[in-house]
Amino acid sequence: MRTPEERLTALGLVLPDLAAPTDTYVPAKPAGQFLFLSGQTPHRADGELAVGKLGVDVTLDEGYRHARLCALQLIAAARASVGDLSRLTVLKVFGMVNADPGFKDHPKVINGASDLFVEVFGEKGRHARSAVGMGSLPHQVTVEVEAIFHVD
Amino acid sequence: MRTPEERLTALGLVLPDLAAPTDTYVPAKPAGQFLFLSGQTPHRADGELAVGKLGVDVTLDEGYRHARLCALQLIAAARASVGDLSRLTVLKVFGMVNADPGFKDHPKVINGASDLFVEVFGEKGRHARSAVGMGSLPHQVTVEVEAIFHVD
Amino acid sequence: MRTPEERLTALGLVLPDLAAPTDTYVPAKPAGQFLFLSGQTPHRADGELAVGKLGVDVTLDEGYRHARLCALQLIAAARASVGDLSRLTVLKVFGMVNADPGFKDHPKVINGASDLFVEVFGEKGRHARSAVGMGSLPHQVTVEVEAIFHVD
Repeated sequence: MRTPEERLTALGLVLPDLAAPTDTYVPAKPAGQFLFLSGQTPHRADGELAVGKLGVDVTLDEGYRHARLCALQLIAAARASVGDLSRLTVLKVFGMVNADPGFKDHPKVINGASDLFVEVFGEKGRHARSAVGMGSLPHQVTVEVEAIFHVD
Repeated sequence: MRTPEERLTALGLVLPDLAAPTDTYVPAKPAGQFLFLSGQTPHRADGELAVGKLGVDVTLDEGYRHARLCALQLIAAARASVGDLSRLTVLKVFGMVNADPGFKDHPKVINGASDLFVEVFGEKGRHARSAVGMGSLPHQVTVEVEAIFHVD
Repeated sequence: MRTPEERLTALGLVLPDLAAPTDTYVPAKPAGQFLFLSGQTPHRADGELAVGKLGVDVTLDEGYRHARLCALQLIAAARASVGDLSRLTVLKVFGMVNADPGFKDHPKVINGASDLFVEVFGEKGRHARSAVGMGSLPHQVTVEVEAIFHVD
């Protein structure tokens, strides 16, 4: 059975370096065996944030990829806090889509995050989840995802 | 003192069979003494989802009943995970209303969920809560409710 | 090193008396070493709720102060539950802004809550966080903030 690190490599993925928050909060806060992760927004490879609204000017495929980016950044934040990805179980994901008021396909967007967690952590990546539509998101990003992990 | 199961019977309620998620998440994820429950959306008796927006084409009474349905489904998800409802305490409820931007009565809608938890679990059903308005919800359902339970 | 109570006094702040919820939920629910706090909405000194939408009729400065009020009320709810503020660590903050669909500055608003937590609790006030835009909030309040605390 491969480790999460080996799975990331097999997927051709590299955990990004996260910019430190400039405000008075932190990317990850451990408490006992729980790890609370701040919401991550999709930073593209060119360093720009992915912006726009689902149902207006962003496609489902784009949204899916942006949610996947958010999940990759959540894993990076968890590793920076905990060190060894093998200790982690994904418990709860809250997936937030910047969407038109009539949008219906939030689950198909947030699957981008859920699928990556299972690809990287296997059964330990399978989590409880809500996937919902926000009125707006910071900087008008397309997707934001926060999560609670368990640390063995 | 009656058990939660006896109270459900006295209320004339039957826990529904939940459809298994087709995506890479689960309805309930246990971690130590905590149980994280995925957001539930209101499945009516005819099997259809309740759709529409509060403040537009859904009344407060309808919204209240839909929130109650979500809570019943959350209890069903918890029982499928834990078995015995007597072991459960409701800790935290996040009630999401699909609402017009000018809507004001989110608490009156989410009371449908909160009231059912107290009717079924008694004092152990009394929880911390937020009741808020989303820009949109999956399939345009009227209400979605997620929760964290404690397992004795 | 000053206690949180001493810091509140140095800031000229007094914890408000919270109105008891009239519905079937509670302001704070303890579970083991965790304390789940219900969403707080900004009650001004005159007893009125602060209402309006960011990006429409509420300024960033006003929103920041309203988020600060929410955080003060969360601390009051935690003290009413736990007694001694020195036992508390802020783990997770969910900051919800009632905003125009095009609003971008949610973090600058919710900083009002995050900053107060650090002013009162020092390093123990530094938390994981999301700061996002809701379609609507109860009574059309400007901001609502919920939190999870740790109790030593």
